Amino acid sequence: MRNISLLGATGSIGRSTLDLVRRYPEAVRVVGLTAHTRVAALAEAITEFCPAVAAIADPTLLPELRERVGDAPTELVAGPEGVVQVATQAECDTVLAAIVGGAGLAPTLAAARAGKDIALANKEALVMAGDLFLRGMAAGGGRLIPVDSEHSAVYQCLRGCRIEDVRRIILTASGGPFHGRPEIDLAAVTRAQALNHPNWSMGEKITIDSATLMNKGLEVIEARYLFTGDHGAATIDVVIHPESIVHSVVELCDGQMLAQLGMPDMRGPIAYALTGPRRAADVMPRLDLTATPLHFTTPDLDRFPCLRLGFDALAGGGPLPCVLNGANETAVAAFLDNAIPFTAIPEVIEAVMAACTAPAPATLEEVLEIDRWARERASGEVTRKG
Amino acid sequence: MRNISLLGATGSIGRSTLDLVRRYPEAVRVVGLTAHTRVAALAEAITEFCPAVAAIADPTLLPELRERVGDAPTELVAGPEGVVQVATQAECDTVLAAIVGGAGLAPTLAAARAGKDIALANKEALVMAGDLFLRGMAAGGGRLIPVDSEHSAVYQCLRGCRIEDVRRIILTASGGPFHGRPEIDLAAVTRAQALNHPNWSMGEKITIDSATLMNKGLEVIEARYLFTGDHGAATIDVVIHPESIVHSVVELCDGQMLAQLGMPDMRGPIAYALTGPRRAADVMPRLDLTATPLHFTTPDLDRFPCLRLGFDALAGGGPLPCVLNGANETAVAAFLDNAIPFTAIPEVIEAVMAACTAPAPATLEEVLEIDRWARERASGEVTRKG
Repeated sequence: MRNISLLGATGSIGRSTLDLVRRYPEAVRVVGLTAHTRVAALAEAITEFCPAVAAIADPTLLPELRERVGDAPTELVAGPEGVVQVATQAECDTVLAAIVGGAGLAPTLAAARAGKDIALANKEALVMAGDLFLRGMAAGGGRLIPVDSEHSAVYQCLRGCRIEDVRRIILTASGGPFHGRPEIDLAAVTRAQALNHPNWSMGEKITIDSATLMNKGLEVIEARYLFTGDHGAATIDVVIHPESIVHSVVELCDGQMLAQLGMPDMRGPIAYALTGPRRAADVMPRLDLTATPLHFTTPDLDRFPCLRLGFDALAGGGPLPCVLNGANETAVAAFLDNAIPFTAIPEVIEAVMAACTAPAPATLEEVLEIDRWARERASGEVTRKG
Repeated sequence: MRNISLLGATGSIGRSTLDLVRRYPEAVRVVGLTAHTRVAALAEAITEFCPAVAAIADPTLLPELRERVGDAPTELVAGPEGVVQVATQAECDTVLAAIVGGAGLAPTLAAARAGKDIALANKEALVMAGDLFLRGMAAGGGRLIPVDSEHSAVYQCLRGCRIEDVRRIILTASGGPFHGRPEIDLAAVTRAQALNHPNWSMGEKITIDSATLMNKGLEVIEARYLFTGDHGAATIDVVIHPESIVHSVVELCDGQMLAQLGMPDMRGPIAYALTGPRRAADVMPRLDLTATPLHFTTPDLDRFPCLRLGFDALAGGGPLPCVLNGANETAVAAFLDNAIPFTAIPEVIEAVMAACTAPAPATLEEVLEIDRWARERASGEVTRKG
């Protein structure tokens, strides 16, 4: 039985997690919940799951939350400190970190340092502050378990391997709605077109990241911290796999490969993160292997420079992954606001990365300072492009 | 370091094994060799690897073997007892059982009972005498490691799973040269056409079994004994996968799947059987995932009844798997001798299975008696069809 604090309970991953808790009450219990602003959905979840403590990140919404929850026994807190309290409370052994974007870093890091097992759907913790976060995990002594479908796939494949036999980790990418479609003028694509993902139903920000391939750029960095460590000789590659059936592949030194397959359904990786190495029955629909051929192609880094920027940030190291992430969040928000065209997203990020002269961040404060700088600088670039 | 007795040193698997021993002398040493009739090739291998003992199964060839080997220190023996001696000798800890067909059963069973680890490429041991063979393994206490590419794939996938979480084992089949080609008149295909396998370079008998899909029928039975045991709830299925890149798939109870991929090259599974869970470097060529799409289709049991007969024999149990195997060997030999058409192979086998009234065999002698009966009966059917 895992006692989880669910950070980001009202987002896509959070809702899938609550669906699993409903179905497998003998395996997972909710002891903490947080949401950013969706106060009605959070109140409903509090009423249903009765956690020990729940936080609304926007403190102005606390009175409304109190009113909606009524006299439930859950302790209600607010603000970033409230979210950290949910992440570090004594009743919880596992934090499912599903806050989208940089806002998830501080509470997830606090949970790591507090010795919680971390089921990590918030890739920004490793992208913005990989070294710092891994030091936090090591200090706390908890286990780090990936929830992203690609990293869960690698994690599942690696269970049967010796890490020193791994030569290459190959992350698959759907390619989103535009890869492999040269007839589409990327400079003219609309918000609605970019949000129309062919395979996965996800939140807005990650759906745009999927369309630009930045999602895969962030995942390459995440995979570096999750799987290759300081001594890891394994390289990380990306292949486009439009069907999203093979979720990732591990190439071993002998030339053989292991892969994890399944329908594109986040309940699979979430459940494995919470119950693995055991598996709950019938978590997701079964895959019919004969339904479609599986295609794999090389990513087009010229047309989708965000993935190249991900590799560049990883190679450059220091503050660059954090800069990449912050500038991307600002650029994606601007695209969603119709302030810049789709093709300006990588231009904004590249300009901000080129302007960065900061040293590698050593503390959470330095990470957040670099993040702030990157967002400000990106906002300036957005204004110039808009 | 494994000290292996290689049974069937001059066949396809045997030669690949010796290639690996040449390249990884720090991991594998040859202490025993056997061959059926290829005395020149056996003598060369004896001279190169200097095993403690070597056997030629055909005793009339022992004088020629002595002459060819000259004064090498290897003890030379002959006949079925000689093969058993090589399989059970004290210097050997692992037997690589690569004798094609029913001839491999007795020495492999002797090795199992003697406590050797068995790297099993001779699927007939499990098909003819699955219960008897598993009792022999249990009595001896050695480990049973599959070498067939499909079963090695399952074995590699299962390393990271709890066996009770496995719902289904999906063996892939290339389909051979004829599956999915309805324009081919199977009644008229020639020996040369049937031997022209699209992906794998193998011995003649197994190549014909691949063209009829009987190879997969035998593998379904093998998988039953290797992986599902008496208590195994997992079912075994087959999908046609013409590219022979995904070597098999394990479906887990949560709806996720693990698969093993690689170029079709037996050195991969052989090396893993001998060195696993460690992996030797660069055993086989690397796979380029982008080289070809991967297709999966349902096998056509009407046009390829041998696979259906495999499932029937497994379901019927008792002597039927042994009958299936013996009748198939006779029918395939008759096809290779141009004595019967390709489509008569399943007809012969089905007629022999239908005529069998024997009880389940309890001893090696009873297994061999059923095998003898099946071959004789099949010869009669061949004469009738010819």
